[in-house]
Amino acid sequence: MDKERETLLAWRERMRQELDQVMAFWTEHSHDRVHGGFLTCLGQDGQVYDDLKYVWLQGRQVWMYCRLYRKIERFHRPELLDAAKAGGDFLLRHARVTPAEKKCAFVLTRDGSPVKVQRTIFSECFYTMAMDELWRATGDTCYRREALAMMEQLTHWVREDPSGLGRPQLPGATRAEPLAVPMMLLCLVEQFSEADAELATRYAELGDWCVHRILQHVQREGTAVLENVAEDGGELAGCLGRQQNPGHAMEAGWFLLSYASRKGDSKLQAHIIEKFLLLPFHSGWDPEHGGLFYFQDADGLCPTQLEWAMKLWWPHSEAMIAFLMGYSATGDPALLRLFCQVAEYTFRQFRDPKYGEWFGYLNREGKVALTIKGGPFKGCFHVPRCLAMCEEMLDALLNRAS
Amino acid sequence: MDKERETLLAWRERMRQELDQVMAFWTEHSHDRVHGGFLTCLGQDGQVYDDLKYVWLQGRQVWMYCRLYRKIERFHRPELLDAAKAGGDFLLRHARVTPAEKKCAFVLTRDGSPVKVQRTIFSECFYTMAMDELWRATGDTCYRREALAMMEQLTHWVREDPSGLGRPQLPGATRAEPLAVPMMLLCLVEQFSEADAELATRYAELGDWCVHRILQHVQREGTAVLENVAEDGGELAGCLGRQQNPGHAMEAGWFLLSYASRKGDSKLQAHIIEKFLLLPFHSGWDPEHGGLFYFQDADGLCPTQLEWAMKLWWPHSEAMIAFLMGYSATGDPALLRLFCQVAEYTFRQFRDPKYGEWFGYLNREGKVALTIKGGPFKGCFHVPRCLAMCEEMLDALLNRAS
Repeated sequence: MDKERETLLAWRERMRQELDQVMAFWTEHSHDRVHGGFLTCLGQDGQVYDDLKYVWLQGRQVWMYCRLYRKIERFHRPELLDAAKAGGDFLLRHARVTPAEKKCAFVLTRDGSPVKVQRTIFSECFYTMAMDELWRATGDTCYRREALAMMEQLTHWVREDPSGLGRPQLPGATRAEPLAVPMMLLCLVEQFSEADAELATRYAELGDWCVHRILQHVQREGTAVLENVAEDGGELAGCLGRQQNPGHAMEAGWFLLSYASRKGDSKLQAHIIEKFLLLPFHSGWDPEHGGLFYFQDADGLCPTQLEWAMKLWWPHSEAMIAFLMGYSATGDPALLRLFCQVAEYTFRQFRDPKYGEWFGYLNREGKVALTIKGGPFKGCFHVPRCLAMCEEMLDALLNRAS
Repeated sequence: MDKERETLLAWRERMRQELDQVMAFWTEHSHDRVHGGFLTCLGQDGQVYDDLKYVWLQGRQVWMYCRLYRKIERFHRPELLDAAKAGGDFLLRHARVTPAEKKCAFVLTRDGSPVKVQRTIFSECFYTMAMDELWRATGDTCYRREALAMMEQLTHWVREDPSGLGRPQLPGATRAEPLAVPMMLLCLVEQFSEADAELATRYAELGDWCVHRILQHVQREGTAVLENVAEDGGELAGCLGRQQNPGHAMEAGWFLLSYASRKGDSKLQAHIIEKFLLLPFHSGWDPEHGGLFYFQDADGLCPTQLEWAMKLWWPHSEAMIAFLMGYSATGDPALLRLFCQVAEYTFRQFRDPKYGEWFGYLNREGKVALTIKGGPFKGCFHVPRCLAMCEEMLDALLNRAS
């Protein structure tokens, strides 16, 4: 057995075990058996420390449960599907602020009253992902109708008229495009297009548009991925324009790799690996303590985000997916080595062998800064998505090799 | 010379020198000679890294310049007043989002176009402080008229109808009162009442109301100051209800001490020292590394704010003012010792002997985490206000003793 195969086998085993432990944490601690949905504000040992329900995290957990139920045999368990359906029904009943409109709340009380609304599209994106997966897992077309209706609203907000989001257009505000917007829409295009030729055709042009927009974030003659750019592709002034988020660029990277692979576009693939994987990794990896910085400034100035040098769980999860996908697509051993470098750091620093799941927030030196396992922005999503995707990719690599 | 007097003398000298150096930093680097107002996004050496103008910081710097000009002889310099007037005129021309209304922007472009509006009262509070000080420094009644008109609007928003702030009242949102709201209104009442019997009378009831509201933040049978409480004085559920900010409690503490001293209420004074100075200090001081935590949870759980364990400049500035004011009022040597403990840590960890001004953001261990001297939330305010107030209080203590 060669060295590379040994590496792949060892990581598949680690991913599989870790995924089981992580999912056990969420199924044990997060189900709200009274109102449906999920309690995601969980301390180190899984104790609920707040019962607010963040719509991003509700949608993501529904999506994750359905995805695992559909894709990995050992998770094809009725209790996962039941919890996902209870979560989906909670969202259907409560997520929209006004029943007649599509705008969703950002956070709800435990029983579903809206607490806060964000003037962005992300609650609605995760709502849409949840509904489409529920349709795929249950076959119930009410979920799909909901997903498609929300998708129509989302594309309207992004491509035609954002005024329904409620943010006033002030004369001094440049219309900046955050990387997250075309990235999330591309994610939804991929979601709808899975095994559905009709929708793949319907959303093909939108997918191309998203990719065009994401690629516009490569700036400064190809030397930097910037988090926010002008809608015409120019660099924005000030901190906003110089802001970089290496993990986010790598997350966009693997969405782009999926797209390039679907298109069979190897030139695009090479461009993505260079600009969205290697470039942010090399700028973003802390040479002193290891791990990926959260924010950087393209001119090397000090970012203004207090947490810029902290090491967060999700950029590491996304980097693992990106490098393993890059390696799967190219067979380049350098990408496997980078996958191993990130994965070793991540498994060593973020895992909690005592209670399961991962810590989310380490300081620059890699020490746990927040002991929570879930909170307003961390739920059952990045970690299990990473582990499940890595397990699947490693399976495919090992099957291909044998 | 006794030991205590020696301590006071030494600190007065340090405060005076430090204030001169800090003010030299701002006068050298922050004046916008093209548009008026101040550039506050300044790197370690004073270089401008962004030219956005945050209205809080514009108002605060105008206030600070006028205050120093009025109160400390060596700052009675025309260039300070000229810069303050240019800042005030910039605010008059540009701060309001719509000229006919009172709502101010949170951030403007360098030439004054609104970029973002916050749905809170704080831009307007600092605008009001600036205008009242400008009136006091210049005698020009147009500033005072502006200050009084905005004050009327502020009390209307806080005590009668907040709907003009633009935040939708959602059914799941409990009407929480942040400590900052009555604290800032009390600060404005003190501002207007200085040497003005008529306004002191007009705002007496409002001042009493603010104090009543601030005291309601002492919860759990007097064992904790909570950052947010229900309007009826009850504790709120979840993280929001348990949130503590020790430096903020101490800042409220010295506003309350001023009020108690004006009223000659020594019982209230003792209560404030116990609850708003000693309690937050003892819970908030990091026993391992020194310095004040930024956020805490009243149940001792992990806060969800990523920066909770960081050491920020302003809680330390406010604690210094609070302990020295407490000592001035009572003569209790324990309060002088606490002042020295905080001031020693602060001068050792936050000062930048190389370029002047203070770093704003240290990690838990006290290492500089952000090298910026100014940014979206740090300008020419907490540091010089602390140094000037401490210098004045030390002067008074030394004069009293001799």
